[in-house]
Amino acid sequence: MSDDSFSATLRKQIVQAVNRVRETTPLAQSFTNFVTMNLVANAQLAAGGTAAMSFLPDDVIDTAEIAGSNYINVGTLLPFFKDALPEIAYKLHKNGKTWVLDPVAAGIGKTRTAILESFRTYTPTIVRGNASEIIALDAMWGLAQNDSTVPGTRPAGVEAVDEVDAAVDAAKRLARHLVKRSPIGAGAVAVSGAVDLVTDGEHVFRLPGGSAMMTKITGAGCSLGGVTATYLAVAEPLVATISASLLYNRASEIAEAKSSGPGSFQVALLDALWNVTAEEVAASEIIID
Amino acid sequence: MSDDSFSATLRKQIVQAVNRVRETTPLAQSFTNFVTMNLVANAQLAAGGTAAMSFLPDDVIDTAEIAGSNYINVGTLLPFFKDALPEIAYKLHKNGKTWVLDPVAAGIGKTRTAILESFRTYTPTIVRGNASEIIALDAMWGLAQNDSTVPGTRPAGVEAVDEVDAAVDAAKRLARHLVKRSPIGAGAVAVSGAVDLVTDGEHVFRLPGGSAMMTKITGAGCSLGGVTATYLAVAEPLVATISASLLYNRASEIAEAKSSGPGSFQVALLDALWNVTAEEVAASEIIID
Amino acid sequence: MSDDSFSATLRKQIVQAVNRVRETTPLAQSFTNFVTMNLVANAQLAAGGTAAMSFLPDDVIDTAEIAGSNYINVGTLLPFFKDALPEIAYKLHKNGKTWVLDPVAAGIGKTRTAILESFRTYTPTIVRGNASEIIALDAMWGLAQNDSTVPGTRPAGVEAVDEVDAAVDAAKRLARHLVKRSPIGAGAVAVSGAVDLVTDGEHVFRLPGGSAMMTKITGAGCSLGGVTATYLAVAEPLVATISASLLYNRASEIAEAKSSGPGSFQVALLDALWNVTAEEVAASEIIID
Repeated sequence: MSDDSFSATLRKQIVQAVNRVRETTPLAQSFTNFVTMNLVANAQLAAGGTAAMSFLPDDVIDTAEIAGSNYINVGTLLPFFKDALPEIAYKLHKNGKTWVLDPVAAGIGKTRTAILESFRTYTPTIVRGNASEIIALDAMWGLAQNDSTVPGTRPAGVEAVDEVDAAVDAAKRLARHLVKRSPIGAGAVAVSGAVDLVTDGEHVFRLPGGSAMMTKITGAGCSLGGVTATYLAVAEPLVATISASLLYNRASEIAEAKSSGPGSFQVALLDALWNVTAEEVAASEIIID
Repeated sequence: MSDDSFSATLRKQIVQAVNRVRETTPLAQSFTNFVTMNLVANAQLAAGGTAAMSFLPDDVIDTAEIAGSNYINVGTLLPFFKDALPEIAYKLHKNGKTWVLDPVAAGIGKTRTAILESFRTYTPTIVRGNASEIIALDAMWGLAQNDSTVPGTRPAGVEAVDEVDAAVDAAKRLARHLVKRSPIGAGAVAVSGAVDLVTDGEHVFRLPGGSAMMTKITGAGCSLGGVTATYLAVAEPLVATISASLLYNRASEIAEAKSSGPGSFQVALLDALWNVTAEEVAASEIIID
Repeated sequence: MSDDSFSATLRKQIVQAVNRVRETTPLAQSFTNFVTMNLVANAQLAAGGTAAMSFLPDDVIDTAEIAGSNYINVGTLLPFFKDALPEIAYKLHKNGKTWVLDPVAAGIGKTRTAILESFRTYTPTIVRGNASEIIALDAMWGLAQNDSTVPGTRPAGVEAVDEVDAAVDAAKRLARHLVKRSPIGAGAVAVSGAVDLVTDGEHVFRLPGGSAMMTKITGAGCSLGGVTATYLAVAEPLVATISASLLYNRASEIAEAKSSGPGSFQVALLDALWNVTAEEVAASEIIID
């Protein structure tokens, strides 16, 4: 397939994903942090899906039966998460369920590290994080042990301290690992930054644009992870990941133009997620390596 | 009493309830889910009351002493809720305190089922849910075991899969059970939907109107439950339940007219809860069976 | 130093604090209640800082190493907080870290009392609360046992039942205790009310203005506590406390003028925190006793 027809097919799939969510209102379930869970739910609703949040394994596994996909975010850990999250990841895997991981603050705290290490075997379908988190997760899973090009980095916190480009190799290694272990034989990794990067381990897609105001509201990244899960309910991982990132880039540009600070920006972002057309999203610039 | 004078009395009581909340700023305490608790508190404040949220039994029971009523919502369960919530329900009952239950996702997860079953004996004063949740709770409490008209249903999740009309019998049975066990000798059930339904087990009130945008923000139902508790602090259960539902219907219509998506809708909803007059609320259409 | 030059120096320090936060985007970490944590984070971002929220001791202590200061708020307690918070306070103290305490609902619940009592030895750098909370904390720590002017009060709940002036003595005693035990040799106390009061135990600063709408949104006080921590990352305690209170007063006045209810007020408040200039903040009326 030529680059042009590859790109044309991709754009058609993006239009389909955006519209299918709006037509079928799929449920994506979240186990996510307390700071931003309200925005995650509201963003999923604004994108056209529906939301449910749970923490208990029995609750999560029951809800996964009626959900189209799932989202796990490791911010604001409580003590029982240390046992609950590995159990949930195991059961989702065993039941062939797809899920998106947001490895918030990867590298901070031994409890978080234990949880993230357990996901190496019972893997998410998609990982979305900032550059520092993607690099930290790749290191934690030891995916680069036979790779001489591993960049050094420091633990991430919740703010990216690394540039997206520094995470390309880590993102590709992670994506190949996800694909290999995926119950549906596919996976993807997204690195959020000034220019977002998405990869399935083979191709690398760079998605320019968006708004710097996204770093001035809490939960921009978390809610993008949640909306990625919403799209994963109706599309394959690579298309879901690219579609969600492009939706966010276009919506945040519209929101920035209409707002006069972070308060009105968040309001306008939810409105734009609701109003932006599938065609606008699919017409976005996509740079394919 | 004729239907007309019954209705006139009711409308007078609604005006009083809406105004009394604004004049006396009653405290309603909530034990509620993490997703929407911010909106619950903000809606209670916008309606004119004050808010306090607690999870520990010692905290909840202490606060109940200074609160006018209480609200319990069983979304986003944590492990300790399994013991804490039955203990709290027992102590509220023993102390003669009134409370509103939102049986979010009734039927999902064995922990939630255990908690909801415990409320059969130490009952809430008001139950507010969607049709599926009301049907599930009625079935869980076995209230229809001697009733040949029981409709079948499937567990609800957080989205209603049943229509309000399918829940009329369940709602009436539930309400009669609440009244029978109520420390204040009164109770009510509200079923949210395109046309809301409220019953005290005897009369059935249908409340048309509202906005479909309510399903596009998270916590519309939860915050209505919280505001119902605010009204319960100043009015008897049936009047509190009808007043809160009508307040929400009028406010959501105003908000829809002023907004351009779910972000601005939520902002406009809080403004409208604050600005709508008691007379506008009481002038609403009420269909009495 | 004359009163005039004292005041001129203070205003210069306020300008510096407001600008330094915007230039250096310091991280302030929060262990805070579930109701308002989203607003805390968004307010810290809107003021120019960055936010991270954690509950596990290992997570909090790791994050404290990369944070400029910390914020602890004792609303919505969970069972494990009883051990976690004293451990965290001890380790922050041992590591010489600064932190702001919001003693929400001081006096309600034996778990909260146990936690707040443990902070008597491993003290915060700044305490910010309403008058009732400040009075309750002072009583709880027994700071007035040799003082014949102690006013009586009742437990606070989340609403202040006492006026700011009733808390002057308690605030000064608290501040002197904080200073004495501070790893950096300085501390301050802020009492929020119609006229905010700030003291370092020696001087008392009254800060008039602000908006009554602050009591109609949840988290106004909590988020002020969080922003105080943001300022503490770049300024000494007294300047940080005054700067944050003045920023809030000016921003809330701007927000009230632009809004038509509590929904639009919160949006406008975040916008105003972002847009108000350091000079506007520093030009505020400050009454020095």
